[in-house]
Amino acid sequence: MHEFQLIDKYFSKLSKTNKNLLNLNDDVFFDKSRKLVVSVDTYVEGIHFINFKKPDLVIKKIIRSSISDIICKGVKPKYYFISGSGNSKSFSSSNLKKISKSLNQEQNKFGIFLCGGDTVYSNKLSFTVTSIGFSQKIIFRNNAKINDDIYVTGNLGDSFVGLNILKKKINVNNSLIKYFEKKYYLPNLHLELSKKLLTFANTSIDISDGLVTDLEKLINKQKLSYKLNLDNIPISKNLRELLIQEKLNKISYISQGDDYQILFTASSSKSRIINKTAKSLGIKISKIGKICSNQQKSQIIDKKGNKIAVNIKGYYHRF
Amino acid sequence: MHEFQLIDKYFSKLSKTNKNLLNLNDDVFFDKSRKLVVSVDTYVEGIHFINFKKPDLVIKKIIRSSISDIICKGVKPKYYFISGSGNSKSFSSSNLKKISKSLNQEQNKFGIFLCGGDTVYSNKLSFTVTSIGFSQKIIFRNNAKINDDIYVTGNLGDSFVGLNILKKKINVNNSLIKYFEKKYYLPNLHLELSKKLLTFANTSIDISDGLVTDLEKLINKQKLSYKLNLDNIPISKNLRELLIQEKLNKISYISQGDDYQILFTASSSKSRIINKTAKSLGIKISKIGKICSNQQKSQIIDKKGNKIAVNIKGYYHRF
Repeated sequence: MHEFQLIDKYFSKLSKTNKNLLNLNDDVFFDKSRKLVVSVDTYVEGIHFINFKKPDLVIKKIIRSSISDIICKGVKPKYYFISGSGNSKSFSSSNLKKISKSLNQEQNKFGIFLCGGDTVYSNKLSFTVTSIGFSQKIIFRNNAKINDDIYVTGNLGDSFVGLNILKKKINVNNSLIKYFEKKYYLPNLHLELSKKLLTFANTSIDISDGLVTDLEKLINKQKLSYKLNLDNIPISKNLRELLIQEKLNKISYISQGDDYQILFTASSSKSRIINKTAKSLGIKISKIGKICSNQQKSQIIDKKGNKIAVNIKGYYHRF
Repeated sequence: MHEFQLIDKYFSKLSKTNKNLLNLNDDVFFDKSRKLVVSVDTYVEGIHFINFKKPDLVIKKIIRSSISDIICKGVKPKYYFISGSGNSKSFSSSNLKKISKSLNQEQNKFGIFLCGGDTVYSNKLSFTVTSIGFSQKIIFRNNAKINDDIYVTGNLGDSFVGLNILKKKINVNNSLIKYFEKKYYLPNLHLELSKKLLTFANTSIDISDGLVTDLEKLINKQKLSYKLNLDNIPISKNLRELLIQEKLNKISYISQGDDYQILFTASSSKSRIINKTAKSLGIKISKIGKICSNQQKSQIIDKKGNKIAVNIKGYYHRF
């Protein structure tokens, strides 16, 4: 049973559902009357991060992954709580100094504040981050409209290459190691875009589990399908060159997750304002497909119009 | 280095401190302008709970321990988020059913709602609970006054006996096993007392780590001491009989933690209203000592006025 079935089956009935309370079926909790937005995420060593040899980078990635959930909904994060379980090696003075320095840098970068948490002893290292923001409005899941354009920010796939370099599954030169590892550890969140999203996005999600998986999550309660154009899915110059050099398929790299880019849909009438916003903020925003009725199957097509089989659907936790 | 030194040294500087924001030095976070109260706690198998053979009871205890932090500050908890890390054995269908049922029962008992969380795979079972309440006012730590009376609700020590029975370190008859184990798993939180506390308590904390440890935490930033009367520290009839029968010292049982009773101080002028409140709510509230200046040392005295040495100071996480 995977994570979403599990939540649906056993826990959905425990949440108070009305239109002013977003609940377990979304990535964030929203209490409209109190303008409160909350997100909780857990990260386990060996699952969400390989190891703790670079605590400074792991901590930054964890914080960014957490606040990304709120930012992609059009909300500025304000407070965060971090609860760490670990042993004396993970929480040595030297590591704590690095953790503290990293948190301070992230606080300055994103305007957030540490407000509490917990530290407990465990032989298994893990962190749970609670992120809180305040907003009168957020972008809901499952609110795409037929014929909406599908957009994504930045580039996809770089983070997955970085992960594979760290796992020693891909060999590249030193400057590319640096480039891709940075993309893995330090996702570039688009805080500036966040508020603007509220004005044009019908629905949105951040890509943590993979483009296809997250797109399906985004519309999972709707009777809709999607059509993605592989050619329009944005990748970096470095990834493009790597794919050619190593004779790798683009499709295997753009839906593996950990990108923390924003995936959203918008009416085609918003096309101009989206392009203008992208330009003025200096953020790459690519139109990668369309939302369709469920009379056709969801598909990814190449430039010749051929359907591409996707057997990589990103990451689910299975129990 | 223990937990509090660790927080002080590396993380206090990351929190935004002003009188409207309670921060890392308290058990809860309070944003006065938004009336927001937040508490985050992590529970690890083998540390905070022995094992997961009784998921229904473990989950109840975890929820109660978490909301206890907020209740003891005079605030009604409203929302909670639970993030579980575990494997397919811990999160089997049968266990998930029990967890869901327990959460539902706790929700009905305390008027709280599940609002989200996370479920991730890990071989080490742990839970992080984020509790949220809303209040214009809360009871702060480090706000005791010289000559304040020190009060505690309910009885202390029963939970510790329950733990020792579960660990097979204490042998008692079946009806006592049932009594003490229940006290360990299902602390009796005083939700009804919560709002009233705001009207008479100067400072308060819930006893999770032990009477002495938590009392010291309660006034740790103040230049004060305390005097406790051992005889006045409330224990149950069952514990009193057990102490006599097994020739055990009371002092070894009343400061071991996990009691989740409320420890607070109040001016002696509030004595009448406190007794009246206790009577009307049917809650046992005992006056157990006094807050003194730091010209004398903190002490526990027996009925003859002799000082008692305390070498049991409850539970700290050490790294």
